[in-house]
Amino acid sequence: MTKPLFAICLASAVLFFSLPGNAADPLPSWNETESKKAIVAFVQRVTTKGSPDFIPAGKRIATFDNDGCLWSEKPLYFQMLFVIDRVKQLAPMHPEWNRTQPFQAVLEGDQETLAAAGNAGLMQLLLATHAGMTTDAFADTVRDWLQTARHPQLNRPYTELVFQPMLELLDYLRASGFKTYIVSGGGIESLRVFAEEVYGIPPTQVVGSRIKTKYEVRDGMPVLVRLPEIDFIDDKEGKPVGIQQHIGQRPVFAAGNSDGDFQMLQWTTSGEGASFGLLVHHDDGAREWAYDRDSHVGKLDRGLNEAAALGWTVISMRHDWKVVYPSR
Amino acid sequence: MTKPLFAICLASAVLFFSLPGNAADPLPSWNETESKKAIVAFVQRVTTKGSPDFIPAGKRIATFDNDGCLWSEKPLYFQMLFVIDRVKQLAPMHPEWNRTQPFQAVLEGDQETLAAAGNAGLMQLLLATHAGMTTDAFADTVRDWLQTARHPQLNRPYTELVFQPMLELLDYLRASGFKTYIVSGGGIESLRVFAEEVYGIPPTQVVGSRIKTKYEVRDGMPVLVRLPEIDFIDDKEGKPVGIQQHIGQRPVFAAGNSDGDFQMLQWTTSGEGASFGLLVHHDDGAREWAYDRDSHVGKLDRGLNEAAALGWTVISMRHDWKVVYPSR
Repeated sequence: MTKPLFAICLASAVLFFSLPGNAADPLPSWNETESKKAIVAFVQRVTTKGSPDFIPAGKRIATFDNDGCLWSEKPLYFQMLFVIDRVKQLAPMHPEWNRTQPFQAVLEGDQETLAAAGNAGLMQLLLATHAGMTTDAFADTVRDWLQTARHPQLNRPYTELVFQPMLELLDYLRASGFKTYIVSGGGIESLRVFAEEVYGIPPTQVVGSRIKTKYEVRDGMPVLVRLPEIDFIDDKEGKPVGIQQHIGQRPVFAAGNSDGDFQMLQWTTSGEGASFGLLVHHDDGAREWAYDRDSHVGKLDRGLNEAAALGWTVISMRHDWKVVYPSR
Repeated sequence: MTKPLFAICLASAVLFFSLPGNAADPLPSWNETESKKAIVAFVQRVTTKGSPDFIPAGKRIATFDNDGCLWSEKPLYFQMLFVIDRVKQLAPMHPEWNRTQPFQAVLEGDQETLAAAGNAGLMQLLLATHAGMTTDAFADTVRDWLQTARHPQLNRPYTELVFQPMLELLDYLRASGFKTYIVSGGGIESLRVFAEEVYGIPPTQVVGSRIKTKYEVRDGMPVLVRLPEIDFIDDKEGKPVGIQQHIGQRPVFAAGNSDGDFQMLQWTTSGEGASFGLLVHHDDGAREWAYDRDSHVGKLDRGLNEAAALGWTVISMRHDWKVVYPSR
């Protein structure tokens, strides 16, 4: 190939590959509000060579909470919905659960007793449904559950209750050289089952809560067995710890929606150089749910109080988003 | 651009971008032995579309031990060399160490007492030198040490004692769509300080042993503080556990050199589909060190016994490698 021809090819390739990011609107489901402008301005500032806020590609780390940030978390966090369904599913093999709390409360739908059982009760339920099998068997269980379970009020699969504007934000950041991570209080092995298909986030970019596992060889075949013991809780002060364990770098972009994400945003936005903190505010009772300071699930109080002073962007679902869920 | 011109451009681009991997020898420091042929044949089988052993790019996970696999581990694992130097450095601030074991043994070079202190003694030394500071301060300490420390016998920086043939193997795998990870018994935060510069492996692709950390806000600035408590030991049965925690997928290629890597290779090569297990055998007393079954550091006994039956490739440093270290 002659030199000029090669130059034409190169120029056309550059044009071809840069078209999607520049010409088209990267966030079509976002209204033209201050929130969208702030996101786009940040991405442009940190990806423009020569800009004082330029961040090299290897340091463009973006972390996203899952429940309430990438998908709906009402009436309960998905890990809890899974626990409740699993207790019901496994009950025939555990007749003693009919007269043992907190299992009995789950089987009878007795919310009051369940709430009274508190965190200790929650742990009992969690370990009874999440431990005692191999990692492969557990992943299969979650996969099966996601395929059949439906949201109790909306009657849709949970994986359809993702936020279309946030899917676009994930794509936009990746197209701009960011590496996107989930950093969730949910179980890491549950999240990994659907994160790649639903969010385009591979297993290695998922950070979550963990129980301990043990390597052993059974009948000549090695397996990883899930043990009934909490290893790590990826919530509140745990989120920066989980980020350091898995990523080993401070993010420059963090998105959350509850006070469980406060420390992740605080850690992200107190590093050197440019950074972005985003909180999704659930103020859309018509299209999703409206809740914040007084909610048990997804409580957002401290974040609302301090966001402005800390320079974080609070997304109003009602005002900033054209749609909430993807069209079917 | 007309269609034929676009086709020429595409074809030339494909040719251009595929040249480095095909035309040039990807492993120039390897002799033309069975070991090299086995590696190249595996990579070609799993990356050729339509091959029965084809592995999609997202599943091409390769894990490498560090000490003795990517760089020399004699006379001691680098984490231990660091500990010894740090105890000497910190001693003026700890006059009590002059009369407290096992610190006294380190300061006096008393190998016998040090060995007698066993694992408990080792842990004391480790926690005294690795905890009580922020993650940033610790990383700075490791960085400073690596810049000044010299190998006691070879008088070279440790980061120069990497194996040139293994650097080429890492590059070759990455050029073939593999994601390369370090999975080491060494400390994860120590490894991250140099893994990117030396091996081209970013912080998020490093798996290692960990102490616990705690998030706290000091004078308004958030920090991660390293606590004097072991969180995870990434050795033997721990390696598949660490791989699952960090990567969430079973590797298809694993390289090690000691029985501490046995379970990582076992886990890797007992998955479904094609896989490759590699052991570096230190049989080169002239250019590096010769040791295996009876060595305290980097003992390789079970691996040598079972490699053939398990289909693993044992690399002879003496016969398979043209050079050991990179030329200066």
